[in-house]
Amino acid sequence: MARNPKKLLNNPTEVPSEQLEGLLYACRGKLLKVDGYSGVYRDDIRNDQVVVVTGGGSGHEPMFAGYVGQGLADAAALGEIFASPSPDIIIETTKAAEKGKGVLFVYGNYAGDNMNFDIAAELLEEDGIQVKTVRVTDDISAAPISKMSDRRGVAGDMYVLKIAGAAVESGYDLEQVYEATKKANFNTRTIGVALGACSIPQTGKFNFELADDELELGMGIHGEPGVRRQKMTTADQINGEMVERLCNDIELQSGDKVCVTINNLGGSTYTELLIAYRKVYQELTARNIQIYDVLIGSYCTSQEMAGYSVTIFRLDDELQKLYDMSCNSFAWRK
Amino acid sequence: MARNPKKLLNNPTEVPSEQLEGLLYACRGKLLKVDGYSGVYRDDIRNDQVVVVTGGGSGHEPMFAGYVGQGLADAAALGEIFASPSPDIIIETTKAAEKGKGVLFVYGNYAGDNMNFDIAAELLEEDGIQVKTVRVTDDISAAPISKMSDRRGVAGDMYVLKIAGAAVESGYDLEQVYEATKKANFNTRTIGVALGACSIPQTGKFNFELADDELELGMGIHGEPGVRRQKMTTADQINGEMVERLCNDIELQSGDKVCVTINNLGGSTYTELLIAYRKVYQELTARNIQIYDVLIGSYCTSQEMAGYSVTIFRLDDELQKLYDMSCNSFAWRK
Repeated sequence: MARNPKKLLNNPTEVPSEQLEGLLYACRGKLLKVDGYSGVYRDDIRNDQVVVVTGGGSGHEPMFAGYVGQGLADAAALGEIFASPSPDIIIETTKAAEKGKGVLFVYGNYAGDNMNFDIAAELLEEDGIQVKTVRVTDDISAAPISKMSDRRGVAGDMYVLKIAGAAVESGYDLEQVYEATKKANFNTRTIGVALGACSIPQTGKFNFELADDELELGMGIHGEPGVRRQKMTTADQINGEMVERLCNDIELQSGDKVCVTINNLGGSTYTELLIAYRKVYQELTARNIQIYDVLIGSYCTSQEMAGYSVTIFRLDDELQKLYDMSCNSFAWRK
Repeated sequence: MARNPKKLLNNPTEVPSEQLEGLLYACRGKLLKVDGYSGVYRDDIRNDQVVVVTGGGSGHEPMFAGYVGQGLADAAALGEIFASPSPDIIIETTKAAEKGKGVLFVYGNYAGDNMNFDIAAELLEEDGIQVKTVRVTDDISAAPISKMSDRRGVAGDMYVLKIAGAAVESGYDLEQVYEATKKANFNTRTIGVALGACSIPQTGKFNFELADDELELGMGIHGEPGVRRQKMTTADQINGEMVERLCNDIELQSGDKVCVTINNLGGSTYTELLIAYRKVYQELTARNIQIYDVLIGSYCTSQEMAGYSVTIFRLDDELQKLYDMSCNSFAWRK
């Protein structure tokens, strides 16, 4: 347990800018940097569209910048590792992207992000830019359903951004994009399991400790406390409980149609992700839930944290139509 | 250093079959299981086509089964974790897939795989099935260029399979598919860096040890010894050396066109992959090498091994035409 975090980096304080540089090179001109601020926007925003702006702390790659692209987010404001972007980053990123048809902020529900995006929204409104906000609250382990607005946003951001971007592509106006995105968030639920800690480069220390024989169910993507810490057990036992908690929380009914993501938080093996999906598939099928689509991989990470999360996104006719539309970003091409 | 491998599994001996079950569920009928053997084949093999069969040990997910699909491999024979499939698995997998137009075996160059695929080829030939073989030898750290046939196959398998599959889609006959695939292999070079060990579920122990302040350049995907072990240093230093070794080995010239993959061996952060690509891009661009396409993610893993590999695939007109064709499997959709 006394081992040190070990990563191949250059200057720890330059990590956010260096990794962004790598991403910009990889996106080959389709992702543009905001001049002087750690924000990005896509190169092909239409002049007549609502603009979706996301963002949050760095360290969760490919979230958030990896979801900027056609049919997803139009721009992302990026903070330091595990820290919210400041209001000026959010404002300048929004101004680089927006086209006078209104802006929808979509980001994970964390105190720092809420504060900074709210300040930015207020200042943008003073400049005559209309802003509405959907905070993603998919992590069911963070608070009971009765306090959904206390829940954190985790991997489910991807589905909420997918619907927001598809709504924009469909020509929805700001109010309509807002309503579809709010509905997408309500239909997205996630729970994670952690087997190991994460570390941020600036401290070079693990954010928390987990004993060699322990796991934590429901841990957040920055190491926030979960539902419970317990001794290691079988995959099927934990994965079965995760599915049951998700199904109960969202009140899935026989015949419902869902998308599923098994998201690697960082250090888990592909082996574990596939074995997790095996159980998720078996459990959902046994409940007569139709799996419409599935994604297995690294979609919202937490540095080297060993563990993964399971997200369920329930479709209705409108959400399915929007989900079916194409999207094209570094992290998600469909 | 005394920590234990930690994974969320069920019965360790059932890992290969359980993860395959998860993959089959995820592929929704497009990937079929060979009856009674740990092999898979795609559901839409044409009756008039050469068939590409790959395979090797499990534990490198999404390699190999994840590359079975349109425009890639047609079938894969799967062994236990880090162990070659037996000849009978290879034979039955080939028989499930082949259509009488000949078979190309494409697999990584390891003693066990070579022996078992060669036995299978001989027995299949006795049954009147024509078989040719391309062994992938992309790992430049395993032997000098003068002994290319002693080199191991690692992440570069993906490019070699891509070209083989595209050659098949183009209607090439067996000899032509073989020639294009051989050329793809010659133009594919990889080098890896490891920061941590991997473990296989059956033993529950790490395959090797790396001190907290050490890395190993050129380590293989089962922990085979690399070029050298050294103290941790900066990312740019190691990544720069990796690019230089690759460029020298393949004798890249100003004006050459390449595809690049930054492949997570397992436990590295996305942060490190992006920072690695930043340097690779800078170095190749400084040499006036054109980067035609780039992939960054988990393509050929080594369980939880922290580290990554860099692959360069040099294009000529024919390889570019074949590379541009669509492909569609669990691990690679283009």
